[in-house]
Amino acid sequence: MKINAARLWQRLMAIAADGAIEGGGVNRQALSAEEFAAWRRVLDWAAESGFEVCSDAVGNLFIILPGVDRHAAPLLLGSHLDSQPTGGRFDGVYGVLAALEVLTSLQENAIRPTCDLIAVSWMNEEGSRFAPGMMGSAWFAGQRELAAIRACHDADGISVGEALDRLHQVFPLPRYAYSQSPAAYFELHIEQAPLLEQANCPIGVVSGIQGKHTWQVEIRGESGHAGTVAMDTRRDALQAFTVLAGKLYQQIGQYDDRVMFTIGWLEMEPNAPSVIPQRVAFRVDLRHPDAAVLARLATLTATLIQQHSFCEVSLTPLSAAAPNTFDSGLQQQITDSAAGLNVASMPVLSAAGHDARYLATLCPTAMIFIPCRDGVSHAVSEWAEPEHVAAGAAVLLATLLSCRLPGWQLFR
Amino acid sequence: MKINAARLWQRLMAIAADGAIEGGGVNRQALSAEEFAAWRRVLDWAAESGFEVCSDAVGNLFIILPGVDRHAAPLLLGSHLDSQPTGGRFDGVYGVLAALEVLTSLQENAIRPTCDLIAVSWMNEEGSRFAPGMMGSAWFAGQRELAAIRACHDADGISVGEALDRLHQVFPLPRYAYSQSPAAYFELHIEQAPLLEQANCPIGVVSGIQGKHTWQVEIRGESGHAGTVAMDTRRDALQAFTVLAGKLYQQIGQYDDRVMFTIGWLEMEPNAPSVIPQRVAFRVDLRHPDAAVLARLATLTATLIQQHSFCEVSLTPLSAAAPNTFDSGLQQQITDSAAGLNVASMPVLSAAGHDARYLATLCPTAMIFIPCRDGVSHAVSEWAEPEHVAAGAAVLLATLLSCRLPGWQLFR
Repeated sequence: MKINAARLWQRLMAIAADGAIEGGGVNRQALSAEEFAAWRRVLDWAAESGFEVCSDAVGNLFIILPGVDRHAAPLLLGSHLDSQPTGGRFDGVYGVLAALEVLTSLQENAIRPTCDLIAVSWMNEEGSRFAPGMMGSAWFAGQRELAAIRACHDADGISVGEALDRLHQVFPLPRYAYSQSPAAYFELHIEQAPLLEQANCPIGVVSGIQGKHTWQVEIRGESGHAGTVAMDTRRDALQAFTVLAGKLYQQIGQYDDRVMFTIGWLEMEPNAPSVIPQRVAFRVDLRHPDAAVLARLATLTATLIQQHSFCEVSLTPLSAAAPNTFDSGLQQQITDSAAGLNVASMPVLSAAGHDARYLATLCPTAMIFIPCRDGVSHAVSEWAEPEHVAAGAAVLLATLLSCRLPGWQLFR
Repeated sequence: MKINAARLWQRLMAIAADGAIEGGGVNRQALSAEEFAAWRRVLDWAAESGFEVCSDAVGNLFIILPGVDRHAAPLLLGSHLDSQPTGGRFDGVYGVLAALEVLTSLQENAIRPTCDLIAVSWMNEEGSRFAPGMMGSAWFAGQRELAAIRACHDADGISVGEALDRLHQVFPLPRYAYSQSPAAYFELHIEQAPLLEQANCPIGVVSGIQGKHTWQVEIRGESGHAGTVAMDTRRDALQAFTVLAGKLYQQIGQYDDRVMFTIGWLEMEPNAPSVIPQRVAFRVDLRHPDAAVLARLATLTATLIQQHSFCEVSLTPLSAAAPNTFDSGLQQQITDSAAGLNVASMPVLSAAGHDARYLATLCPTAMIFIPCRDGVSHAVSEWAEPEHVAAGAAVLLATLLSCRLPGWQLFR
């Protein structure tokens, strides 16, 4: 049996209408009207196949292909429907629609798994509207408190709690009711880096995810008239930022050839052309695949930020995730399944974070990557070739069909 | 005869309600609902005295005390009602209300000038909502085109043209109909610097205004995923800003002890925590009292900005005003009038720009400063002492009462 590659591609292109922006990308941020539209579309497709659906307190969406034993631990596969403000057509949504395609193909072929097989879309993977991201998977894995998640606000002052209440009002689904941890979790995603493309290899078997620390930094200076306050008496928050960020780009961003250092978000007050800035807030994103190096760089980052300056500086850690390694048995099964389909594969490290990071704390977890053009992601030009999109879903299905763990197998 | 110092102070405190913000300051930006409220209040006070009022195409407000010869060139005095987003209770509005107080006192004493005496509030001095500022006085002086002014937009996409049409709809006043240039212009203002306070001197006779250049700079890089794009291949627009701004703060901002260098406004895209910034736009404000030094620094600023970088950088000049010198005869009359009232005065240079800069291209022009606490302005803590507020208005009235220019005098 095979997945329906044409249907998967057609659905991927169709859902890109939800939040479509100029240049062919999407802006479909967590719990936005655009993500609601994508939910509606996915629920319609689930209804066509007669799948059960449910949600949970944190707004994850689950689509269920019932297994032989409805009380057994379910197997989950999926990713996320939300995007960055200038996101592309594949990041996240591909993993959700491929999971739905696997369920749909199995259903059409009347193949029943031993346990429930669940396609999932995790709430707020991206963290652009509400920071930090991966809220849905973090809560599902018991790594974050619901109250703290609900209290987060977007730039307009809307809380996750309010947005979730609205979600549940618009989509009054039954609640996710499985008491056990999942039997396993699989996530299919574009690589968001150029290694597979450079190697001309359609399948990446993901060995693990590099570690990531994020902080919010606030610099508080003093405002004043741009024409009258002598330079040597100023406490200009943007000037302080420039000195501080300059050090960070040099000492952290150029530490070695594997470090990733980004300041992607910045806010300034009062942000008026002839007023000295009194406050600059910004977010730091630091990643490294080596746990020891990451810990060292995180300490150095915090030290450099706090050493400075002629303004007051405060530092709030938002997230700190060590590098993780995926289940080696499942990695081997993906490699074998790709070989069985005559598709080349290679091991790759994930430079980006994924919900699979949190699922790996609950159950055996694996990720499959496909190439994306020039390694570009989080941009409207993000692109994956149809044959790679099809190959990824085919390998996912083949892996599931032969999937076995100690004392357990998905199909008999 | 004297001005009514209590009435002037009471009006200053009352009008601070229009756009009041936490901490005692005001946010009353050009052509906003808050400035409309201040217009309404000033028009009500003008109506109490039975003054004529009019406006013009660019939204300046004029309140007229008729003179003996209604066809003679009028004498103007005033300032502006708009404020910075985190402005104080004195910057601008003091000069408008003091001018109104002078007219009101003359009217109450039935003293009639030889020509019409007009209190004016110039449109958009501050330039925070619509950049650059001093739109009303620049147009009045024939230094800027109305069409270009109307085409400017605020951050919400509202044009000056739309806002002006609304102003004229809400306040359908007759049009300003004087064909000659004014006979003279006087502007009273807080110093916005600490020199008068340090010298314990209540009156500053302003010798001139330091020169000012402003630019908008755009840095265009490339967005991408914060976790996957190798540091040495990035074109991070914020990183480019940091390098570029670092050079400017050092080489321009520390050039000598008289230069003023500020980046007060900055905008970033897409401004998402885990996306590499693809665009940073910012405004540069450069001032110096020496024309030759200012010209040299302006050239150096443009060169430094364009020398850089690993991103594309474009530079748009917004304004370029050389330092100017006020009429020496009027400066002497202010000094003499202060002495006649037994009030100390001293010459001061204005570090801030004012509408008087543009009026000085039309007619003999002078400015009077009073101290403000710690030299602070463009901040909610901006403060002037009631006795200084009264002294400034008293010196303004005394100067007018004896005001004479070649072949002309204001009172007979």
